[in-house]
Amino acid sequence: MTAPAKYDVIAIGNAIVDVMAPCADARIAELGMARGGMTLVDTGRAESLYAAMGPAREMSGGSAANTLAGLAALGARCGFIGQVADDQLGAVFAHDIRAGGIAFDVPALTGGEPTARCLIFVSPDGQRTMNTFLGASQFLPEAALDTAMIADASVLYLEGYLWDPEQPRSAMRRAIAAARGAGRKVAFSLSDGFVIARHGDDFRALIAAGAIDILFANADELAALTGITTFEGGLAALAPQLPVLVVTRGAEGAVAIAAGTRAEVAAAPVAKVVDTTGAGDLFAAGFLSGHVRAAPLAECLKLGAICAAEIISHYGARPEADLKALVSAAV
Amino acid sequence: MTAPAKYDVIAIGNAIVDVMAPCADARIAELGMARGGMTLVDTGRAESLYAAMGPAREMSGGSAANTLAGLAALGARCGFIGQVADDQLGAVFAHDIRAGGIAFDVPALTGGEPTARCLIFVSPDGQRTMNTFLGASQFLPEAALDTAMIADASVLYLEGYLWDPEQPRSAMRRAIAAARGAGRKVAFSLSDGFVIARHGDDFRALIAAGAIDILFANADELAALTGITTFEGGLAALAPQLPVLVVTRGAEGAVAIAAGTRAEVAAAPVAKVVDTTGAGDLFAAGFLSGHVRAAPLAECLKLGAICAAEIISHYGARPEADLKALVSAAV
Repeated sequence: MTAPAKYDVIAIGNAIVDVMAPCADARIAELGMARGGMTLVDTGRAESLYAAMGPAREMSGGSAANTLAGLAALGARCGFIGQVADDQLGAVFAHDIRAGGIAFDVPALTGGEPTARCLIFVSPDGQRTMNTFLGASQFLPEAALDTAMIADASVLYLEGYLWDPEQPRSAMRRAIAAARGAGRKVAFSLSDGFVIARHGDDFRALIAAGAIDILFANADELAALTGITTFEGGLAALAPQLPVLVVTRGAEGAVAIAAGTRAEVAAAPVAKVVDTTGAGDLFAAGFLSGHVRAAPLAECLKLGAICAAEIISHYGARPEADLKALVSAAV
Repeated sequence: MTAPAKYDVIAIGNAIVDVMAPCADARIAELGMARGGMTLVDTGRAESLYAAMGPAREMSGGSAANTLAGLAALGARCGFIGQVADDQLGAVFAHDIRAGGIAFDVPALTGGEPTARCLIFVSPDGQRTMNTFLGASQFLPEAALDTAMIADASVLYLEGYLWDPEQPRSAMRRAIAAARGAGRKVAFSLSDGFVIARHGDDFRALIAAGAIDILFANADELAALTGITTFEGGLAALAPQLPVLVVTRGAEGAVAIAAGTRAEVAAAPVAKVVDTTGAGDLFAAGFLSGHVRAAPLAECLKLGAICAAEIISHYGARPEADLKALVSAAV
């Protein structure tokens, strides 16, 4: 039996500021972007896309950081590990995460690349097309890990996006070892098809080794990881290998399978889908908020659906409404 | 008769990025802020207030710059004169103003103070409490003026806030001379009671000298400028001294008097007042968009009310909805 944990969830992820603007679909195509996708961009491409972007707004983002913002808003005790630069956008990111009540102590990178940003073009139907300049975030050093903090958290949550760059990947491998060594759970979000294309073998090996307790994926990622194109086929192949598998399906809701038990939830109603950025991140937040207090699987899913619905009803991937109130009204 | 102008409106104002977060009224009092007010803050106070602020979002702001953003969205040809620093927030401000189709060529300040920011605490009823760190903005040098551009604009629009620091004040005096020398109109926004308290004599002298063609004020500013506490008394005293006087009254609508003709407008309906930041700025935008095409006074007011209603229905002082469509549906 493991000792009671000081934290509910410690997450390792990109430390990114989102730059968002509405954009017509025709213009997205014209600029050479794949609608709905996430593309890594270098400085030059980031500058030319920014120049082509309309008047924008900025909000802290980053997949795992968004998840923590939701979890903390729901009352979970959280900590974040990720790297900003010592610049104004880094100060914005650090302020927002700490102001949400999340522990964040990784020093800002000095003299290197600037803080990561994600240029998000939002289509009229709310679909988001992301262009990420990773900057300082991709150089998160292994030395930034607070392994004692990780050992003192019920769940270690890892953002798949950050498996791609080498330094954070090695930091995450060490974090998994620290969590498992302390008898804690490891949750992993697959993030995007491109990550699976490059690192699917790593993920399949981690799953086979029993190193992942809770896996978050969407339907496309499930297919990419399993190589099985039918949704049910993919689920049937992957679920037996994981203590908990959670698969989101956008407007079709989500499915979770834990120890052979299956639960489903419909998507929560939304008056108008404004911006889908962060839908998966906030689904994970809601789900984990239930999971860390051992709520039934169906309730975890419902919490996920409520949080995802909140985030897609407005611009930005950090919650605006009082999630606690939303959740207590609904559950 | 003056030559046709290349620009409809050139504005001189603060180049500011707004940092906004919701805040309970009790907390606003606790932090020593005057609810609904605008206070200039130094670096130390800005830092301590930012540390006390919840998770925030950033959007370009600045009173006159907001007005231009509205005007440009309505199809007016605009240019902005103001100073950012050579930093990330300065790049954000410059991007947003240019992306709105507004000419902006003032070089960023290097090696001095950072770009201005305004910490805006938004109360549950939408009232905003502003704390402005002026940074680079207050050092706008006279040399930054493009007097040829000013001479080529139908209207020169001046932000009262910027009358307070010495360098921009002297730049604005020179801009008034350039505009008048070219036979153009000068519009002035009184901005805030503190500006009138410090510089009311300047404003009264400019008005008496006939240097101001269009004056924008709210009811409090009208009282402060005239020293007359009744609304009608203030109007009666001030209107004869100005070709056009526009006074906004929040939820009670607005009044304009031009050459003895008086028109009024009710506030346009808003489903929910989310954030009143920019209400006056966007009222001025709507009004001027009509004025520059010689629309009747009542129509100018109506345009102002529509734009103000749009801006208070969401966070941030830059328009989100398609103002042109809103206006053509209503007028």
